[in-house]
Amino acid sequence: MNNNNDLSTLPADELRRLGTQAFAGLGLAAPAAAQVAEVLVLADLFGLTTHGLSRIESYGERLACGGISALATPVEEQVAPALARLDGCNAVGPLVGMAALEAGMRMAGQYGVGLVLARGSNHFGPIAPYAYLAAQQGFASIIGSNATTTIAPSHGSDARLGNSPLGFGVPNPNGDHFILDMAMSVVARAKIRNALKRQESIPDTWATDSQGRPTVDPRAALDGFLLPIGGHKGYGLALVVDLLGGLLSGAAYLTHVKSWVDAPDEPQNLGHFFILIDTKRLGSNDWLQARMSDFAAILHLSPAVEADRPVIVPGEIEREKMRHYLHAGVPVDATTLALLQRYASRAA
Amino acid sequence: MNNNNDLSTLPADELRRLGTQAFAGLGLAAPAAAQVAEVLVLADLFGLTTHGLSRIESYGERLACGGISALATPVEEQVAPALARLDGCNAVGPLVGMAALEAGMRMAGQYGVGLVLARGSNHFGPIAPYAYLAAQQGFASIIGSNATTTIAPSHGSDARLGNSPLGFGVPNPNGDHFILDMAMSVVARAKIRNALKRQESIPDTWATDSQGRPTVDPRAALDGFLLPIGGHKGYGLALVVDLLGGLLSGAAYLTHVKSWVDAPDEPQNLGHFFILIDTKRLGSNDWLQARMSDFAAILHLSPAVEADRPVIVPGEIEREKMRHYLHAGVPVDATTLALLQRYASRAA
Repeated sequence: MNNNNDLSTLPADELRRLGTQAFAGLGLAAPAAAQVAEVLVLADLFGLTTHGLSRIESYGERLACGGISALATPVEEQVAPALARLDGCNAVGPLVGMAALEAGMRMAGQYGVGLVLARGSNHFGPIAPYAYLAAQQGFASIIGSNATTTIAPSHGSDARLGNSPLGFGVPNPNGDHFILDMAMSVVARAKIRNALKRQESIPDTWATDSQGRPTVDPRAALDGFLLPIGGHKGYGLALVVDLLGGLLSGAAYLTHVKSWVDAPDEPQNLGHFFILIDTKRLGSNDWLQARMSDFAAILHLSPAVEADRPVIVPGEIEREKMRHYLHAGVPVDATTLALLQRYASRAA
Repeated sequence: MNNNNDLSTLPADELRRLGTQAFAGLGLAAPAAAQVAEVLVLADLFGLTTHGLSRIESYGERLACGGISALATPVEEQVAPALARLDGCNAVGPLVGMAALEAGMRMAGQYGVGLVLARGSNHFGPIAPYAYLAAQQGFASIIGSNATTTIAPSHGSDARLGNSPLGFGVPNPNGDHFILDMAMSVVARAKIRNALKRQESIPDTWATDSQGRPTVDPRAALDGFLLPIGGHKGYGLALVVDLLGGLLSGAAYLTHVKSWVDAPDEPQNLGHFFILIDTKRLGSNDWLQARMSDFAAILHLSPAVEADRPVIVPGEIEREKMRHYLHAGVPVDATTLALLQRYASRAA
């Protein structure tokens, strides 16, 4: 019997409290636990459940075996007035992410733009929460992280780069922010697993077999490598994220990144980059709101190819989910809820 | 008889002199003409001939009819210490691009990072030359421009966004810079035209028909819209470039961009963004060179799927072409050479 998919719904505030307590139970100081919970609950509010509080399972395992340091505090080094390096000191990823975000907004507020390069980090959740928090304060953002190697270089035949996420936010002062949060693969592995379950073939643009050859067989694809969007373009974009987030930050990059799965007790030394831009320097709120709303309206006015699939602007799906979940409660699966409660009880 | 594809080869210096004279013949002041020629000759050196001096044909037409202002000089406005807006004043695009690049490097040198948002511009050539010039001086770069609308929004059925180019550079102090310069479509229209000539069908991931439906018919595709890489991901990335380069800069965006072809005598008001990062603040040249060379080596060591197609790192093809052309001369087609000579004779 598998009840793992049973869903409870909890008010966002209660989930935030429970998440904070759970991370405190895992050994984090209370303010750090609150920041981590803030990022992961925002992920759940956006409907990004695979990157939300469900991550407490893997974060908890690594915290337990010393792969992540519960009490570490990121250390900032100002290398130029608008450029900082951040040593995450192997803290929980979202804690490093929040420290980077805050440093970036502080510098952007003062100099118009700010760049933070973070090393010594771990999986930092999805990017949308950071882009959203920045946009709420009037900052545009470009944010990326490197990741464990799962993708082969174009024309290559073994995993040498990560499916690195890259995200962007541009604020609309009325709250309808543009937010794009994407990984570099055409599809997630889950989509290939689903095809296998249904015994369906997959398009040959999704993945290669273990020899690096494009395949329509989901089983061969799961033994092989995800393909990046646009072939050499997505390959190049994934490298850019690793160069900025990993190489320039002083973190590990490419095959130097330790596998989360194979070496749970070793620091991954992941790297991130956060570019923040203060849009308040560019014009009034009215000016920006008028342009952002016009921008979205132009796109929405393109007649839909299929009547039931209207044109959307990136960020709209997540915003609708958040509005709904703030009103109706946030769905949490039974496994995650049990883990949260178990860890939280340790903090009590 | 069509001899347009006859190629001459000229030494790069001679081509730069001829290009400078030609743009002077089109009315530009000598230093401005030299900057425009610098960008376009670099494009030719990289083998990006469609974006090199051949562009003098369309630039010349627009200069002749007042669609571009020959004597305009971009005006910089410092809105924060590391953030500038640049009004291109409808000058030739590469002149605006070079002004933005220089302002960005100046601010990055002082503050670690610098952002320039340019409006009132025109087609600024490819991005690789700017990323290369920045890398030569130790700056990493993220550069983009919006463009005339040729792409439909995901699920939409008319052209509302441009095939906006986005480029990146990360310097290797030994000269083997990482340079990625890409547009957002899966393929260029030329590739569809070639399929039509050969009466071949095309993959249904390249383009839609005029109704926005994916098509394998190259004729229908040429009446329709190019598809962006990765579906909604490439759509989102193209929007990001327009938001940063167009909307935030104060330029036109989406359908507000005037068509280069339909309205040659009207200013396009294109916009660009230039983010420059001073890598010299992050470590020594030796440190950066060791990491960049290791990064490339890791990728090159991935065994090739096909023996004759080794793994490459973005920037290598362009670098090899430049080395070859600097030695053997730069190929220029007969039409372009005749135009260059005709315009240059006006300056004499």
